[in-house]
Amino acid sequence: MINQTHIASAFDRDLEAIQTQIMKMGGMVEAAIDDATRALLEGDTGLANATRRGDKVIDALEVTVNEEAARVIALRQPIATDLRTVLSVFRISAALERIGDYAKNIAKRTEILADLHPVDGGTASLKRMSKAVQIMLKDALDAYIQRDAALAYDVRARDEEVDQMYNGLFREYLTHMMEDPRNITACMHLHFMAKNIERMGDLVTGIAEQVIYLVDGELPDEDRTKADITSTAKGGMV
Amino acid sequence: MINQTHIASAFDRDLEAIQTQIMKMGGMVEAAIDDATRALLEGDTGLANATRRGDKVIDALEVTVNEEAARVIALRQPIATDLRTVLSVFRISAALERIGDYAKNIAKRTEILADLHPVDGGTASLKRMSKAVQIMLKDALDAYIQRDAALAYDVRARDEEVDQMYNGLFREYLTHMMEDPRNITACMHLHFMAKNIERMGDLVTGIAEQVIYLVDGELPDEDRTKADITSTAKGGMV
Repeated sequence: MINQTHIASAFDRDLEAIQTQIMKMGGMVEAAIDDATRALLEGDTGLANATRRGDKVIDALEVTVNEEAARVIALRQPIATDLRTVLSVFRISAALERIGDYAKNIAKRTEILADLHPVDGGTASLKRMSKAVQIMLKDALDAYIQRDAALAYDVRARDEEVDQMYNGLFREYLTHMMEDPRNITACMHLHFMAKNIERMGDLVTGIAEQVIYLVDGELPDEDRTKADITSTAKGGMV
Repeated sequence: MINQTHIASAFDRDLEAIQTQIMKMGGMVEAAIDDATRALLEGDTGLANATRRGDKVIDALEVTVNEEAARVIALRQPIATDLRTVLSVFRISAALERIGDYAKNIAKRTEILADLHPVDGGTASLKRMSKAVQIMLKDALDAYIQRDAALAYDVRARDEEVDQMYNGLFREYLTHMMEDPRNITACMHLHFMAKNIERMGDLVTGIAEQVIYLVDGELPDEDRTKADITSTAKGGMV
């Protein structure tokens, strides 16, 4: 058998280095969400364009993190909890990369919206939704570094609020479209943006669930109340 | 130095076992796309419900594949090309899992659509799009097993057709919504379903690009003509 105590410290050092990279990636993703949202709200196509281009750096960081994690598996041959910890790196970095993609998509649509018939309303809710997701992301990454399951459960619970904000926006955009057909194209894009933010919340929840898995050894029950009722129940269909 | 020839055969056997699991997973995902599409076109909510439930099996298979890949890294300590090959397993299984999620989402929306004002049209295009993606997926996995870069490039090229079909549907649904506001809610869901299929095409393209990376040692240029113009250029906005 391998002496677990002996290899633990080298493994821990390796893991810490990877976690630093993940925090860096997380910081960049947070900034991307913030930039994409500001670009949208302020109609700043320059910032939108910069956000799109910045996504390449996030993508490259994911590749680095994954290679680093593979190197640690090869070198340290972790088992049980340690293996689980390294495997969670792949999942968390993949989630961050996808959140970055959604921010990029919001930036793309901002550039399109600049040329469309402007739509009143919705922006305050979008801003609130985006802010909530940014704080969730920050807390999920803190929970990861601290191995704080309580904070991770809290993040997970807050995703319901994001889902509820999305439901509100879904209805709001439907109303705008029905009232004035000239709003339809712009509302379709705004709606996709709201959906992108809602999906970011789901991905952050996935990160929080990885933390719970690391701490408790099992994933929380899947049957969390899913509050995005627009794609799961009939109630949200107006 | 490690004797590469000696460990190669054991590594190859391990890899082959994992690839068999990926092919199994791919077959299930193909079936999920097919079932979700048939459920939508035939309004079969029972089949939709079965498709949703079936997604759990795909998710579980991804976990198994990842654990298996980690075990191979720990045991065989692959480097260079071999390491790249094992790391591609994480990416391909993640792509398959996400395609499965999109099929599940289509199934969810089918259950909702059953209670909404029915919309004429769009179904023939959705069916064609779904079929195209299923064949792309089959070919991408064949390309993976055969390490066939030419086939992978072909899959990648075909994604443009899927994007073009999506652009057509985007316009079609906008027209339906503008013509009759009673169509708006149903069209929003149909539009999301079309977008889900378009995203599946992107993920399959990602698998094909992994194959190209495995064979050629580098990813193809990112600047493939992106034919989903609805979120990237102004031309598709009608």
